[in-house]
Formats: sequence, structure tokens, C-alpha cells
Amino acid sequence: MGKFTLSVLVENKFGVLARVAGLFSARGFNIDSLAVSATDDPSTSRMTIVVDADEKTLEQIKKQLNKLIDVIKIIDLTKKRYIDRELALINVSFTPDTKQRVIQAIDTVGAEVLDVGRETFTVEETGDFNKINALIELLRPFGIKEVVRTGKIVIQTEGEKKEK
Amino acid sequence: MGKFTLSVLVENKFGVLARVAGLFSARGFNIDSLAVSATDDPSTSRMTIVVDADEKTLEQIKKQLNKLIDVIKIIDLTKKRYIDRELALINVSFTPDTKQRVIQAIDTVGAEVLDVGRETFTVEETGDFNKINALIELLRPFGIKEVVRTGKIVIQTEGEKKEK
Repeated sequence: MGKFTLSVLVENKFGVLARVAGLFSARGFNIDSLAVSATDDPSTSRMTIVVDADEKTLEQIKKQLNKLIDVIKIIDLTKKRYIDRELALINVSFTPDTKQRVIQAIDTVGAEVLDVGRETFTVEETGDFNKINALIELLRPFGIKEVVRTGKIVIQTEGEKKEK
Repeated sequence: MGKFTLSVLVENKFGVLARVAGLFSARGFNIDSLAVSATDDPSTSRMTIVVDADEKTLEQIKKQLNKLIDVIKIIDLTKKRYIDRELALINVSFTPDTKQRVIQAIDTVGAEVLDVGRETFTVEETGDFNKINALIELLRPFGIKEVVRTGKIVIQTEGEKKEK
């Protein structure tokens, strides 16, 4: 078992998401994260799906997806050169006592404070899955109120992979 | 008609995504974007759904979602104080002639170059929907090869909204 990332280009049509999600669900595959959004071509959408599966199961999923009429193209990025990124918004508590230490933790990883409330910072972070998890663990001792994550998106690259 | 953003907290269970997507599909509502990912509590996931609807239809959607056993909480953020963000990865072409101008365009908006190929930059940008659209239009004359977007995520804030 392992995490696989599929980038699926689909027709931007009514019901496609339900059909794709239904396909995973009917076969008992759990989706770790899913991001669906418009591409630069208004007639298509891109789904980035992270799924926990073994290689054989993954091949089955890809075969089934290819049979869906609205699926244009599936890229299994596991074997390609690509960059993956995720965005997270985090509400973390602070008190007069901890405020400076929370700011210091945020600065350490280069995250950005988007909003300062009376007792809450709203923090934005972009990075790969592990980088975002690391920030969450760094902030946990101060009190995490909410975490909203986009799930992973991926893009194929031409050149060398650069870590952020 | 207008764009509404729903933040839906669900049980992190097999098949929930298919049921939610199916609910929208069965009623003929098209989803503009959807981001599903883990929260800080492993037993729950959060879906951020942007849907094009009128207010009456939106109320119906919310009522139907509330009937799903795996839906824990629905927040209609349209009327709350919140920050919304989206992440985009863009592959844009360059030639020896245009390289400097492409870099300048990327710098102008504060986007980040993640990868430099022989004829392609991979660019990362974070911002609201309009900010990302503006970057795409700025880069379009140079040749856009691919755009991958996460779709919008939203977080409630305590303090004043700050524009990035």
C-alpha cells in the first residue's frame, strides 16, 4: 500500500465529479484528498486525487476511470517529474504570554500571518504535505483552533525539481 | 444566481464524498470547485464547495446536506467574516527573447518561480480567485501550457479581513 497521486483531466460537465467519486466509493477505495477546479480551458476541469492503494488496485482504478466518457486524460504522476504543493489556513491561539513565541514559530518556517484577532492568528502556509504537517506540529502547543487544507495539487515540470 | 461557498465538516469515512457529490449532481447543481482534505482531527474531513446557485436553491442544498448522516456541520461562509485563498501552479513558456519579460511579470505580482526548464517556468501563486486570474492573464501573451488550481478554501477569522 502507498499513496498515489492521479491528475485527471475531465470534461467540465454536470455530474462528472459524482461519477468519479462514485467509482472510487463503489470499489471501496478511500480518497485521502481531492482538489477539483477549472483549468485554463473552460470546457475542462482537473481533479487531483490522492488515494491509498497498492499498485495493482491503482491500475484497476485507472482502467475504470478511462472508461468514463467524461475522462479526457489520466496522468499517474507517481513516476513523472513533478512539483506538488498544498495550501493550508490555520487558526492558532495566542495569549499575551505566548504571542511573541507564536510569531517566532510562524516566522521560522516562513509562513504568513493573514489576520490578527484578539486571541487568534490566521496563518497561511504553502508547501508539500510534510512541510504543512511540520508547521501544524510546531503550532500545536499554543492551541490549534482550525485547520483548512486544499489537498495536494501537482504539475509536471520540465527542469530539475526544486524543494521550497 | 451567484457564487456561494460552503464549508462542510464531514466524517472521514469511506463513500462520503460520493454521497455529497451525488446529492449535488442529482439535483442538477454544478460545483465550480471542491477541495476535500483532512482536518486536524483524523476522524473528520472538510469540504470547501463553491457552487453557482440562487439563495433559495442554496437553502435546499444546505437542508439536503444536513440530512446526510456523515455531515457534521455546514457553515455558509457567504455571510461570515472569513479569508479565502486558492493555490495555483502554472507552466508558462519563455524564449530567449521573452525570458526577462516573463520574470518581470512574475515578480510584479509577487509570485514564485518553482522550476526553470529549457523553455518553461513553473510558477506558484497564492491569493483569492481574482488575483490568480489576473496572474494568468498577465502570463497569457507568453504562452500558458498548463494551469492547476486547488479551488478555494476558506477559514473564519476573528479580526479584520486583510487583503493580500
